[in-house]
Amino acid sequence: MNELPNCETLLLERDSGVLHVTLNRPDSRNAMSLAMVGELRALLAALGDDRETRVVVLRGAGGHFCAGGDIKDMAGARAAGVDAYRELNRAFGSLLEEAQALPQVLIVVLEGAVLGGGFGLACVSDIAICAGSAQFGLPETSLGVIPAQIAPFVVKRIGLTQARRLALSAARFDGREALRLGLVHFVEEDANSLAERLLESLEQVRRCAPGANAATKALLLASEGADLGPLLDSAAQRFAEAVSGAEGSEGTLAFLQKRKPNWAR
Amino acid sequence: MNELPNCETLLLERDSGVLHVTLNRPDSRNAMSLAMVGELRALLAALGDDRETRVVVLRGAGGHFCAGGDIKDMAGARAAGVDAYRELNRAFGSLLEEAQALPQVLIVVLEGAVLGGGFGLACVSDIAICAGSAQFGLPETSLGVIPAQIAPFVVKRIGLTQARRLALSAARFDGREALRLGLVHFVEEDANSLAERLLESLEQVRRCAPGANAATKALLLASEGADLGPLLDSAAQRFAEAVSGAEGSEGTLAFLQKRKPNWAR
Amino acid sequence: MNELPNCETLLLERDSGVLHVTLNRPDSRNAMSLAMVGELRALLAALGDDRETRVVVLRGAGGHFCAGGDIKDMAGARAAGVDAYRELNRAFGSLLEEAQALPQVLIVVLEGAVLGGGFGLACVSDIAICAGSAQFGLPETSLGVIPAQIAPFVVKRIGLTQARRLALSAARFDGREALRLGLVHFVEEDANSLAERLLESLEQVRRCAPGANAATKALLLASEGADLGPLLDSAAQRFAEAVSGAEGSEGTLAFLQKRKPNWAR
Repeated sequence: MNELPNCETLLLERDSGVLHVTLNRPDSRNAMSLAMVGELRALLAALGDDRETRVVVLRGAGGHFCAGGDIKDMAGARAAGVDAYRELNRAFGSLLEEAQALPQVLIVVLEGAVLGGGFGLACVSDIAICAGSAQFGLPETSLGVIPAQIAPFVVKRIGLTQARRLALSAARFDGREALRLGLVHFVEEDANSLAERLLESLEQVRRCAPGANAATKALLLASEGADLGPLLDSAAQRFAEAVSGAEGSEGTLAFLQKRKPNWAR
Repeated sequence: MNELPNCETLLLERDSGVLHVTLNRPDSRNAMSLAMVGELRALLAALGDDRETRVVVLRGAGGHFCAGGDIKDMAGARAAGVDAYRELNRAFGSLLEEAQALPQVLIVVLEGAVLGGGFGLACVSDIAICAGSAQFGLPETSLGVIPAQIAPFVVKRIGLTQARRLALSAARFDGREALRLGLVHFVEEDANSLAERLLESLEQVRRCAPGANAATKALLLASEGADLGPLLDSAAQRFAEAVSGAEGSEGTLAFLQKRKPNWAR
Repeated sequence: MNELPNCETLLLERDSGVLHVTLNRPDSRNAMSLAMVGELRALLAALGDDRETRVVVLRGAGGHFCAGGDIKDMAGARAAGVDAYRELNRAFGSLLEEAQALPQVLIVVLEGAVLGGGFGLACVSDIAICAGSAQFGLPETSLGVIPAQIAPFVVKRIGLTQARRLALSAARFDGREALRLGLVHFVEEDANSLAERLLESLEQVRRCAPGANAATKALLLASEGADLGPLLDSAAQRFAEAVSGAEGSEGTLAFLQKRKPNWAR
């Protein structure tokens, strides 16, 4: 199990293969400060290919997921000039790229504000569970700026048709609409059912072999835009390795013996 | 404010930053004649980057949006030969490309027939509002021809899965189904609620900065199929320019002063 | 009408332009054996561009569509080594590629188990009709292997957002959820309405010209990832050929004479 960095803006808790990460700047509704971006990126880098950590659960402290970029950092960048803005913005995009490529399963639990950068983070999750009362939106253009790093991930998540209306109207919407748009997988109306849904999802993921899940996630992410023939050739090779490797042997044997495989105990 | 061309097939009306365009050939359910294609293309070219026109609202006269291609033009092309068909068809595709790339926000109001070419126009809108009783469909193959210029825009709009059934079965469907398929953003059951939804959407778009919206729309359209890294690099540069430019300065200041920015007054 | 191969694992029945294909290994819930993959591929190859066969309807015998890969073949491949696994897996991917590219309209009727490889087959259909009680799922990673050949077709069918949760959680879901996810076009609650929906879809497809449908399907499949300008140029040429060809002439004439075209009689 890899060692994790010390974090000031994040709460970390490990629990049998699950790493719970809580964005912890509740006074600013967990606005994404430069420090928080840096700590999240260091955390994901430290996790690396760690197979003992099978799931990362990301949520926010104080009833909000994340209200977007931090205004104070923006003011600081203003003093430093255009280059500082560009780097601050691009660093958040790198966080999204790294979170998207995470070998572990990323589950987000969305409550309260899920705005701007928080919306972007939601878009790179494998499983998104939200409260019916959550508030989603892309307010950037109403502030005279653009959802620059977020836009491509929003299009990938919910398609161009919905993304263009949301980004060009800055409209707010709730968790039920987020489900309808395909942004999240589950919407729950109270804290109990939110917690139960999270447990159910964790239980499902634990039934899946860690290495097989990492290989499958990489394949899914690679499949958009790739040439189909070579992709399928390479996928067949991955399949042969998986089925003849330790997980494939154990999984097939467990199936024939009608027992749980060792990763699901 | 850019000067607009004189049009015989279109009604034009300007109203505080909004250009209302009405397809006006009600006797043929606003079938898309060569003349109408030409006038729409000239209109979009004249609009160009005009930031004072922030929204274009497109609808049809006489209770129909657009019933598709014009039969008389088709007969004319038959006399002129295969090349004439090809050019007539391609011109409509150019209209769709130009409408898709429009820097302003394009809102369509869909009533009655939304067929063939009319369906294609609906697919390049940023916000689509339709009547529950509207009739959508791709009748081309039932007439022995193909939805040639329209097909790629339908796939981009609602995905391959729905597009293939609609195009290969020529099935008709109403506005409620159009919402379910993600073709439109809103469905309304009477004229009053249709008008109110349009006003609400206009109000939302007016809160957004015109330049930021144009840059965001270009980014969204560029994001499909682009390499992610270079796209995010370029987006960060656009962000830095936006935030340090006139709209970004005004937007941030207005936010801190808890007032509306000057573009939203 | 092309001659079809003799098949041991498939039932074939022709009925006025429709080829009914039934996966017929009910004892193993129509698990996709190497023999069945081979016979399906031979069948599709024999169909070729046959325009008299306008629709292929694919379903399973004994109340199940297809429960996935065959365990016995897997055991055989284990004896033969890693290369055998790779070839067995890739052959199924080739079947999916060939079924996706089928010039005829492919309708699937989904009942009971639609798992793994069966799920993949559902993803390349033009029209998918399912029972509310059907059971869908991607169980691969829970067995320590990966949905290698299937994953790209699932992403293309329902998008990355839904595909990643399903593949990384091995969650099962029913036909109603399959409709909500956009995996199928219709869900029906009993055998009668399933049969009626199939008849309705066949009726709709028969109204469409066979050659126009084949050209349209090829265009839709080519449109994802293609450069738009050249795609529209080529589509305009296809349009000109279609409208001035036999089907286009008959279709236009029938429309003017207010009668059914000859392919719809």
